[in-house]
Amino acid sequence: MKKVTVGVDIGGTNTAIGIVDVDGNVLEKGNILTPDHGDAAKYITDLSAAINDMVSKVQKNEDISVAGIGIGAPNGNYYNGTIEHAPNLSFEGVVHFVEMLKKHFPDVEAIALTNDANAAAIGEMIYGGAKGMKNFAMFTLGTGVGSGLVVNGDLVYGSDGFAGECGHTTLVPNGRLCGCGGLGHLEAYCSAPGMKRTAFELMAKYNATDSMLADKSFNELDSKMIYDAAVAGDKIALEVFEMTGMYLGQGLADTVHHLSPEAIFLFGGPTAAGELIFKPTRENMEKHLLPVFKGKVKILPSKLDAGNAAIVGASALAWKELEK
Amino acid sequence: MKKVTVGVDIGGTNTAIGIVDVDGNVLEKGNILTPDHGDAAKYITDLSAAINDMVSKVQKNEDISVAGIGIGAPNGNYYNGTIEHAPNLSFEGVVHFVEMLKKHFPDVEAIALTNDANAAAIGEMIYGGAKGMKNFAMFTLGTGVGSGLVVNGDLVYGSDGFAGECGHTTLVPNGRLCGCGGLGHLEAYCSAPGMKRTAFELMAKYNATDSMLADKSFNELDSKMIYDAAVAGDKIALEVFEMTGMYLGQGLADTVHHLSPEAIFLFGGPTAAGELIFKPTRENMEKHLLPVFKGKVKILPSKLDAGNAAIVGASALAWKELEK
Repeated sequence: MKKVTVGVDIGGTNTAIGIVDVDGNVLEKGNILTPDHGDAAKYITDLSAAINDMVSKVQKNEDISVAGIGIGAPNGNYYNGTIEHAPNLSFEGVVHFVEMLKKHFPDVEAIALTNDANAAAIGEMIYGGAKGMKNFAMFTLGTGVGSGLVVNGDLVYGSDGFAGECGHTTLVPNGRLCGCGGLGHLEAYCSAPGMKRTAFELMAKYNATDSMLADKSFNELDSKMIYDAAVAGDKIALEVFEMTGMYLGQGLADTVHHLSPEAIFLFGGPTAAGELIFKPTRENMEKHLLPVFKGKVKILPSKLDAGNAAIVGASALAWKELEK
Repeated sequence: MKKVTVGVDIGGTNTAIGIVDVDGNVLEKGNILTPDHGDAAKYITDLSAAINDMVSKVQKNEDISVAGIGIGAPNGNYYNGTIEHAPNLSFEGVVHFVEMLKKHFPDVEAIALTNDANAAAIGEMIYGGAKGMKNFAMFTLGTGVGSGLVVNGDLVYGSDGFAGECGHTTLVPNGRLCGCGGLGHLEAYCSAPGMKRTAFELMAKYNATDSMLADKSFNELDSKMIYDAAVAGDKIALEVFEMTGMYLGQGLADTVHHLSPEAIFLFGGPTAAGELIFKPTRENMEKHLLPVFKGKVKILPSKLDAGNAAIVGASALAWKELEK
C-alpha cells in the first residue's frame, strides 16, 4: 500500500486538488469552483466528496492510502487550522477548517493548513531546490507578493500563525498605495501589477510615445507583454526589469539582515523572465548587504513545476507534519 | 556546590566580566581593558587569569563551580565560536576564540560566543521580560542599533551565524550614510547619533535659533541633552522623539511582517526617555502593520538592568547552552 497525501489549494475562484506521492509526483488532479458551494460547511462537504472521488480514481490503478491532507489558503492559520477573514473568499469570519475537515476524514493521520506562500516554501524544502537547506526564504511573485521563511529547518509561523508577510514590508516611505491599504510596500513594486505600474511611471517620465507598451491601456498591459517587449529590446520594458530588480533587491537584503538565509527562491510569473529579473535583483541585493553577508546568499528560481506548485506545496505541508 | 556561569562582554575599549548565578544575580564583576593585551592569544590568556581571579574571590564566600562561559563580542559567530574581522577590536582576521578559551578551561561544560545584541536577547529570554516567550525580537539602541531575533524559542543565527542585523535594513532609499557605508539604514536614524542627526536636520529645517539645542556643536550634542530639552518642552527635541519613533516604528513593522513576534523589546540609552520614544514608535508601527497584526505586538522596555545587561546576557548564552 502506497502512502499519499492530498494537496488542496484554495483560491478566490478555483480550488485545486491533487493526490501526491512522497516524491512530489501528482497522481491525479482536479478542481472545484470555490464560490459555488455556499457556506464553509457545505464547501467542505463538497471538497471532501471531490477528494474521495479522486482517491477512488487512483485506486483503480494502484493501492493507495491517504496519510495526510495539506491545505494552502489565503489567511490560513497553521496553529489553529483556521481561515480567518479571508478577503477574497466567500467564507465569513473565522472558519475552523481543519477541525471541520477532520470530521470527513477521521482516519487521516495529519491534516494541516497554512497560507499559499508558506505551502510553496515547504514544497521547495520537501521536493524542490531547498532540499537539505535549514535556512532559506521563498518569495512568490504574482498578483501579490507572498513569502515563506524557513529557520532551523522549520517554517516560521510566528506568535500567531501568520508570519512571513514580507510583501508588506515598506520599501519606499509614503510610496505607492498597496492593495492592503498601506503605502510603499514591496508588493506594490514587485508583483506583476507592480511591474505594470513601473512601466506606466517610466512612460510618463520619458514621454515614451515610441515604446512598444505605449499603445496599451492600464487595464490591458500585463507583465508578459512587458517581458516580450524587453526581449525585443524596448527601452521602457528593459528599465522596468531593472527597477523591479532594484526594488526587490532592496527588499531581499532586508530579509537577509533579519535571517541570513542560505538562499532565497523566487517563484511566479515574473520570474519566467530569467536573468532579466534575476540579474538586477542579485546586484541590488548585494549593494545593500553588510560586508559579512556579501556574496553568500544565492537567489535561485524555484524548482517547483509552476503548474502544480500550489497543490504540491500544500501536499508537502502534510508530509512535513507526518515527519514530526 | 552552586553552579554559575561567566558572562564576558568584549567591547572596543573595555571587556566586562561577571560571575552570574542561575537567577541572573551578578555575584562578582570586573573588567580588563581590551586593547592592552596584544594579540588574541595573549588577550585570552589574560582574560582567563582575570576570570580565575574573580572565581577565587567568590569562592572565599561560597562554593561555586563554573558550568559555562558565554561571550558577547562584535562580529561574534555562534556556529564557529569565532570573532571575524571585528572592525573595533585589535584582533586581526578570524580569531578561533572559543577553541582557544577552551584550552584554558578544559573542564567547563559549555563555552559559547555570539554578538552582543544576540546575547542581550538571550538574557531577556532567560532572566528578563521575555521569559516563556517563544517568538520575540530585541533591539538595542546605542552608538549603533543591534538586534536579536528569537523564533520557536531559539535565537536565529541563520545560515552563517550572523543573522539578526536589523539595524542595517533600509528605511529610506538613498537616505543617510550609515556607519557601515550603506545608505538609509535604520541605525542611521534610530541610534543615539541618529537622533542627533535628526535634531540637526530639524534645526536646519526650521532655522530654530531659539531651540535649547541650538548652542551645541555637532560633536557636543548627545541624546541625553535631547531628552532633557524634550522634558523641558523644547519643540525641536520633542520632534526628534516623534521622528525617531516614526523611523523605528517603520522598521519594527518590517520585523513583524517577517516574524510576527509576540513582543519587541527595546534596550539602551534612548529608551530611558520612556513614553517619549515608546509612544510614537508604537503608533507608527501600528500604522504600518497589516490588519492581521494590528494591536497584537507589544513594544516593551527591556527588563535587564542596564548596568549589567551585557555580562548577564553573555552569561545567559551559557545557561541556554547548558539547557540543550
